Formats: sequence, structure tokens, C-alpha cells
Amino acid sequence: MDKFEERTVHTETIYDGKIIRLEIDDVILPDGKPAKRELVRHPGAVALIPITDDGKLVMVEQYRKALGMTLLEVPAGKLEPGESPEVTARRELEEETGYSCGRLEPVTTFATSPGFADETIHLFAATGLCKIDNPAAGDEDEFVELLEIPLEEAVSMLDEGKIRDAKTAFSILWADRSGRR
Amino acid sequence: MDKFEERTVHTETIYDGKIIRLEIDDVILPDGKPAKRELVRHPGAVALIPITDDGKLVMVEQYRKALGMTLLEVPAGKLEPGESPEVTARRELEEETGYSCGRLEPVTTFATSPGFADETIHLFAATGLCKIDNPAAGDEDEFVELLEIPLEEAVSMLDEGKIRDAKTAFSILWADRSGRR
Repeated sequence: MDKFEERTVHTETIYDGKIIRLEIDDVILPDGKPAKRELVRHPGAVALIPITDDGKLVMVEQYRKALGMTLLEVPAGKLEPGESPEVTARRELEEETGYSCGRLEPVTTFATSPGFADETIHLFAATGLCKIDNPAAGDEDEFVELLEIPLEEAVSMLDEGKIRDAKTAFSILWADRSGRR
Repeated sequence: MDKFEERTVHTETIYDGKIIRLEIDDVILPDGKPAKRELVRHPGAVALIPITDDGKLVMVEQYRKALGMTLLEVPAGKLEPGESPEVTARRELEEETGYSCGRLEPVTTFATSPGFADETIHLFAATGLCKIDNPAAGDEDEFVELLEIPLEEAVSMLDEGKIRDAKTAFSILWADRSGRR
């Protein structure tokens, strides 16, 4: 058992939607006192660090309604029920970028907002990229624009504060470190 | 206007809690079709990369109810209404680690889960650390344990998959790169 574990005594589901579910848990804290936890349940996601043979990072520009702005991000997408992260990763790479990859390597797995959400991202590096002739289309409510950015330029954009997404910021530093080893 | 902007025609607030607010927006997509967006509103947060004079990263271990596990993270905390990120950062550093810092430098600002949440983290590097005699206490429902980990060990932990939090994974690579420049 985790030392600071919080024991749930009651769970109330407030909302069960297409992407997220909101639950309020009544918990008992390690000191015996009661507290409430607002918890967002999410199916999890994958993200990719696709690097072309000539050292460019393949990224997508996408409007994010939650933030009211367009963000430059590495390709990513939700896990579908029963789908392995590797399968989701190859599917999202094709749908969002039109690329297939010769090599897909797990990089790491991390939670994005552990204070209130269980969303976990499985991150993969994708190399040996090849354009697919007739790639599968993505979700019909998703509009993305493809960009291929030399890695050193992506690092400069991060240093200039132009990368506003956490998984993408990590991906750029990870790719930069990999390239230098 | 953003090219792929989604225009809101109606917002329904489902839940307004202590930390998050859940809203469902009816939007018009760039192609004129309607869609629903599930949006979690969050006040925003700060996170710190505190590095001791002898090259250790100051981290905290904390049980995260959303994930049902203890995570090793850099210190972080929610913005309070009207509080600047710099003030929040100094307060959280003191409350979670008992340190004050001589130097606080902005590193970057990023969204953690742009697909469904507006949470934005302001990340700072904290150096010139000094232990405070009687540090302010943190939130009464927060139990954290302090760890000071040599930076190269933190990098190894990341490579071994032991860092399960996105902001912390980024912070470790950022500190590693800074130390090598």
C-alpha cells in the first residue's frame, strides 16, 4: 500500500461523456480526516516523436477549444477501447501526418495532469518514415495542418516560448538529446 | 482569428467545484458542422525546477488519487486568484520543500492536456536555495515527502521509466541540458 494512500468511501459520477468522465470521490486522508477529490477519467492517449531521415520533426497545428488557440504539437490521439498503444500510435501517425514508420520505439509513459486527471500518454519515437499513398482519414471533427520542422529550429522555438504543449516540449528535448548521443 | 477556430454557440456548466469546472460547449466547426466539446476549466498552476548548489534536483513524492499511485514530481501548486505565477512559485517552494530561493527564472509555460483542459503550467528554475527555519505549512489535505536527487540519477530514473509525470520528465531534461551548456 502507498504510504499516503487515500481510501475512497464513496464515488459520485457527475458526468459521463464522449471523452471524459467526471467523478467526485469522498476519501479518507492518511491522517484520518475526510476530503473530496474531483477526478477526471480519460481513456489515455498516445503521442509520437516522428523524425524524418533528414532530421525534421513532424508536427501538427491544431485548434484547441479548451485554450481558445492553435497549438503546435507532436501528433497524438486517444486510445480506443481494446486497442494497444502501439496500434493507436501507428493509426494516429497515418491519420494525422500521412506517414507510416519503419520503426516505432517506446520512449516513456507519463500522466499529464495528475492533480485532477488520470490521462496517461504513451510516447513513441517513430523513424524510417514513408509517405502513404492513400492514408486513412482522421476524426471528422479534427482539423490539423502538417509541419516538418528541422530539430534545431524546434529547439529554438521551445526556447523562445513558442511551444505551448507539455508533451511536445518534452518530445523536442528528448529528440535533441537522442540526436546528440 | 485562428484558421481552424471553433465558434461557441452555447455553453453548459455541468459542475463547478473547488479545483475544476466542467463545461460542455456546442461549437460550429470550420466546415460549418456542429460538434460538442467537453472542457475542463482549471485556474492554472506553477511548477519549479529547484536545483541545489551541489547539483541535486529537489522533488516531492505525493499520492495522486486520480492515478491511485504515488508519483515523484517537481514541486507544483495551483495559482490562487489574483496571485502572480512568481508569487505562487515562491510560496509553493517554501510550503512543499522548506526552501527559499535566491534566483527564480521563468523556463516556459505550457498546457498539460490541451485536448480537454485549459490547465496551463508556468515553469520556473529555482537556484540559490536556502533552508527556511520555520517554513509555511502547505494545504492541510496535502501530504508530501521531500527528496533530493542528483541530476544524473534523475536522468537515469527518467530513462528507466520511473518518472511518470509529464512536467517532471520535461524538467529533468531541461535541467540536464542547462547543466551541459
